[in-house]
Amino acid sequence: MNDIDTDTLKGIANQLRIHSIEATTAAASGHPTSCCSSADLVAALFFGHMRYDPKNPHYYNNDRFILSKGHAAPLLYAAWAENGFIPMAELLKLRQLDSDLEGHPTPRLAFADVATGSLGQGLSVGVGMALCARLDNLDYRTYVLMGDGECSEGSVWEAAALAGHNQLNNLIALVDVNRLGQSEPTPLGHNLDAYKRRFEGFGWRTEEIDGHDLDEIIEVLAAVGLGHQPLVILAKTLKGAGISFVQDKEGWHGRALTKEEAEKAIAELKPSAKSGIGHPIAAPTSLPAPKNEAPSAYPPVNYKLGDKVATREAFGNALARIGDADQRVVALDGDTKNSTYSEKFFKKFPNRFTECFIAEQNMVGVATGFAARGKVPFASTFATFFSRAFDQVRVAGISTANVKLCGSHVGVSIGEDGPSQMGLEDLAMMRAVVGSTVLYPSDAVSTEKLMDQMAGQKGIFFLRTSRPKTAVLYNNDEQFPIGGAKVLRQASGDKVTVVAAGVTLYEALKAADLLKSEGIGITVIDAYSVKPLAKDVIQGAAQKTNNLILTVEDHYAEGGLGDAVAGELSASGAKVHKLAVRELPHSGKPEELMAKYGIDANAIIQKVKSLG
Amino acid sequence: MNDIDTDTLKGIANQLRIHSIEATTAAASGHPTSCCSSADLVAALFFGHMRYDPKNPHYYNNDRFILSKGHAAPLLYAAWAENGFIPMAELLKLRQLDSDLEGHPTPRLAFADVATGSLGQGLSVGVGMALCARLDNLDYRTYVLMGDGECSEGSVWEAAALAGHNQLNNLIALVDVNRLGQSEPTPLGHNLDAYKRRFEGFGWRTEEIDGHDLDEIIEVLAAVGLGHQPLVILAKTLKGAGISFVQDKEGWHGRALTKEEAEKAIAELKPSAKSGIGHPIAAPTSLPAPKNEAPSAYPPVNYKLGDKVATREAFGNALARIGDADQRVVALDGDTKNSTYSEKFFKKFPNRFTECFIAEQNMVGVATGFAARGKVPFASTFATFFSRAFDQVRVAGISTANVKLCGSHVGVSIGEDGPSQMGLEDLAMMRAVVGSTVLYPSDAVSTEKLMDQMAGQKGIFFLRTSRPKTAVLYNNDEQFPIGGAKVLRQASGDKVTVVAAGVTLYEALKAADLLKSEGIGITVIDAYSVKPLAKDVIQGAAQKTNNLILTVEDHYAEGGLGDAVAGELSASGAKVHKLAVRELPHSGKPEELMAKYGIDANAIIQKVKSLG
Repeated sequence: MNDIDTDTLKGIANQLRIHSIEATTAAASGHPTSCCSSADLVAALFFGHMRYDPKNPHYYNNDRFILSKGHAAPLLYAAWAENGFIPMAELLKLRQLDSDLEGHPTPRLAFADVATGSLGQGLSVGVGMALCARLDNLDYRTYVLMGDGECSEGSVWEAAALAGHNQLNNLIALVDVNRLGQSEPTPLGHNLDAYKRRFEGFGWRTEEIDGHDLDEIIEVLAAVGLGHQPLVILAKTLKGAGISFVQDKEGWHGRALTKEEAEKAIAELKPSAKSGIGHPIAAPTSLPAPKNEAPSAYPPVNYKLGDKVATREAFGNALARIGDADQRVVALDGDTKNSTYSEKFFKKFPNRFTECFIAEQNMVGVATGFAARGKVPFASTFATFFSRAFDQVRVAGISTANVKLCGSHVGVSIGEDGPSQMGLEDLAMMRAVVGSTVLYPSDAVSTEKLMDQMAGQKGIFFLRTSRPKTAVLYNNDEQFPIGGAKVLRQASGDKVTVVAAGVTLYEALKAADLLKSEGIGITVIDAYSVKPLAKDVIQGAAQKTNNLILTVEDHYAEGGLGDAVAGELSASGAKVHKLAVRELPHSGKPEELMAKYGIDANAIIQKVKSLG
Repeated sequence: MNDIDTDTLKGIANQLRIHSIEATTAAASGHPTSCCSSADLVAALFFGHMRYDPKNPHYYNNDRFILSKGHAAPLLYAAWAENGFIPMAELLKLRQLDSDLEGHPTPRLAFADVATGSLGQGLSVGVGMALCARLDNLDYRTYVLMGDGECSEGSVWEAAALAGHNQLNNLIALVDVNRLGQSEPTPLGHNLDAYKRRFEGFGWRTEEIDGHDLDEIIEVLAAVGLGHQPLVILAKTLKGAGISFVQDKEGWHGRALTKEEAEKAIAELKPSAKSGIGHPIAAPTSLPAPKNEAPSAYPPVNYKLGDKVATREAFGNALARIGDADQRVVALDGDTKNSTYSEKFFKKFPNRFTECFIAEQNMVGVATGFAARGKVPFASTFATFFSRAFDQVRVAGISTANVKLCGSHVGVSIGEDGPSQMGLEDLAMMRAVVGSTVLYPSDAVSTEKLMDQMAGQKGIFFLRTSRPKTAVLYNNDEQFPIGGAKVLRQASGDKVTVVAAGVTLYEALKAADLLKSEGIGITVIDAYSVKPLAKDVIQGAAQKTNNLILTVEDHYAEGGLGDAVAGELSASGAKVHKLAVRELPHSGKPEELMAKYGIDANAIIQKVKSLG
């Protein structure tokens, strides 16, 4: 605990309330009552407990704070104003286009490591940070402030389970149990014991407190870090606490006070409020900085043309190879590491690997946490199971997080396991993530070269790998720039430009050979970079084939490679025909399914013949 | 309990094991060891406990059985062969293209109410069925067989929480705790007490048993339905139980036995196996059938042209209106009912409404359960939060489930709340769901008319609604067939066909007026049916505007309306230009954001002028 008395903290809490009310009333929208219930907790953390440098929110050994209940953003902004980091006057620009004090926090603000606002995600990020602190031998702690309503999200329990399993005693969750959700009371109301039983069942130490009693708050915070378990502080609070005519009442969620109501509320809070106390906070301890520098290069690759290697295996090879050169690389998997081949990394670098078990939402959140601490996390599972974590991936996009995802087992070419295991919508999903890069290599060399760039470049990347073994097509020194494509077959007089990737590229090449014997030429392009797409390369080729393009993909017809090509090129007059999976597939042998669903060489041949 | 001794049940269990081994060895793939750990539980349920008519799996008062650990499919198929429903010989066609005994169960089989195979989803479906039994005054029970590995999925705890909250004592979960995951042991191993504490924390009654002791299994099943809580049976088992050289060993997940191994295993099991016992099962009780008939028509709507009504509010109006005429309609929400306006239904029909709290995965699973019992569930939340449940929606697609989803608060036009709350990828997501219908109405009348069809037609539907109030455009008797579109402005000499929906339709109309005053004509189309798209209507209009199309959408540029139009029409030579959100948006006023991100009337005008 720091040298500040609880009366002062109470005063700061009320000042944070006043800021929150003023800002939301000025914006005429927002969640002041959700700020008020958390105000005492935040005052205690920011001004009486956490070890951080308020002038340098990114300092590597600062305690971390994640506002999982992101709708209490004005409270967070108020704390960073009262500690001196942002000017007080800025607070009244809440939610305006020209201020980064948005409706929910985003990393446009230096003190927001990640975007929050989609509930139930903060604890996963916290788990990632707590694991990272341990990996980096740093003693910062990670505090996650959650709402009680968001504890209904399963992702919270995925995170809780992994934190308990890994005994993350450097992770502290605070649940603001204010009893009221958006549209009705929460299922557990003020029953703190029920929360206690749940968290204890997931391996946590629990403390129940009055969330408006600064003495209790400070006392329980003083015991942070004891024992081996993560700690959850269950704080009984009132929504709108401190505003007599609002607190603990239904119907006040997400509602700004009118000007008159705000004046009345502030009049109640003002007498005890204390502003401008600054930051009488403990400094973080001085420890060596983590080694988070990018290497100048990655080791070379070594494949033999024509050898059969599944791209999923090449992903595993790449991960292990890159891991040698790049200490920032960590890996995560959802109990599929022997299928995705991330186990190649796991076996080599067990302490840089996190087994997340079958909990994909949390896996992506944990990866986001690692990324926020300077690591380069690669998270892998079957491509289709990333659909489980789409919201976490979406929010990672809003966070501009440096997260790398690898999805294996795509399309009908996985065969017998059937539709529940087939990634057939992953391209649509990942393309729609803001700022994403979507890669779909066909052979081992291109997989490895794309992995180098995934590790080396910032941002969210998705690598789509396949189950079947496919021939090595490229020499080891071939380059695969993001946004590029390879023209593999091209001759004057070609009838159509066929754009493919993954298993369908091999079908296109086979079709090209067969068609050639019938005197029909086709251009074949390896579109390994689905987003950004090599628009110029494809367009250039298409212009030589009378603007005729045929896309072929082991993916549904919506939102995948075909739509990407059509969406980018049709404005220029390209005529884009699509071969894709257009119905619910069945179990069967890979080659049977590719034939049945019309994406094999024969389907390409028939389509090419029918065109023009 | 039924009149069958436990020795016979043990024999049946071993026969189920033999079937599972034979089928997977014949297929040369599959999960025999996951079947063996569950065999005694399944034998007890199907041949010694459940009340069902094995000749009529769909009978409305049959006990339901959901194989949440769908990879144990061969065991399920074996049970339905031993009870006489499917021919024994069919079992050896497992995973073949011409047999519906797929790698994981799908409703192509009459006894599989829903597809399973994406882990952690079965319990949610079970909650939906258990709620439905209560609503329909039926006494069937719902049994969900889960793996221990899938208990890492948060969706399990979302379901557990709702079941506990609603005291579903007609729901029984069985957890096959075989200790071994796919790539390593599960986090809790054989620690049954840890599972017990978790389920108890979520309001369940628990029983711990030896999952291979038929006496214990039958004894604990006899006490099903007691008390007010849902029951979980925690069964300690061995993966591969019954095969001496495999059981409880790592490295055997998802691995078929070789022919020699299979022979050896079967030799061990054969002496005690009992086949052809048939189905000495208790019959379901006779109770009145639920009223699940579709009405011949829905009540008319009544709006005034030009009145301002948000489509989200029209959704709520429609739901309440339809609910009167159609007893099959139930509604669910994720604590956003006062924002999505599903509260209009809730207030009118509280017992047909399920508050799912902030747990979207479970909400979609519960809806799938209701649908499997003949109801027409409408589940609503903010559109972007359906990304949380994408995997459940995907699997509902595989289940060909009759589920209706409504996502509100789409696009930058929600304004101040910022990007975490904006649905900007929902069209991409929902279009990529197999068999889905994606609707995006602009005014109240079209919303209501589309809702009539959503209620009346089978399949997965997604309705995209908007936050801002928009003018009623259509007369109350206008029809909006699925797959249609409305040409709202058209004149000879029009320069471009503008395709829009939702808020951008109004921007297009405004642009048309402004351009007209400058002597430039544009055709404006309301593309209320995004999937299936009114290809003919749009193409017909485009042909009159020199094949020039401009799409405008409050959605990211990937996978939405623009890609749908380009993907469908570019083959015919249409030149599709797109206006869409192309960067991470900020908080701000709706009209500011629509301008900044280039989807307002002014952006349309500039783009139209630049074309051609």
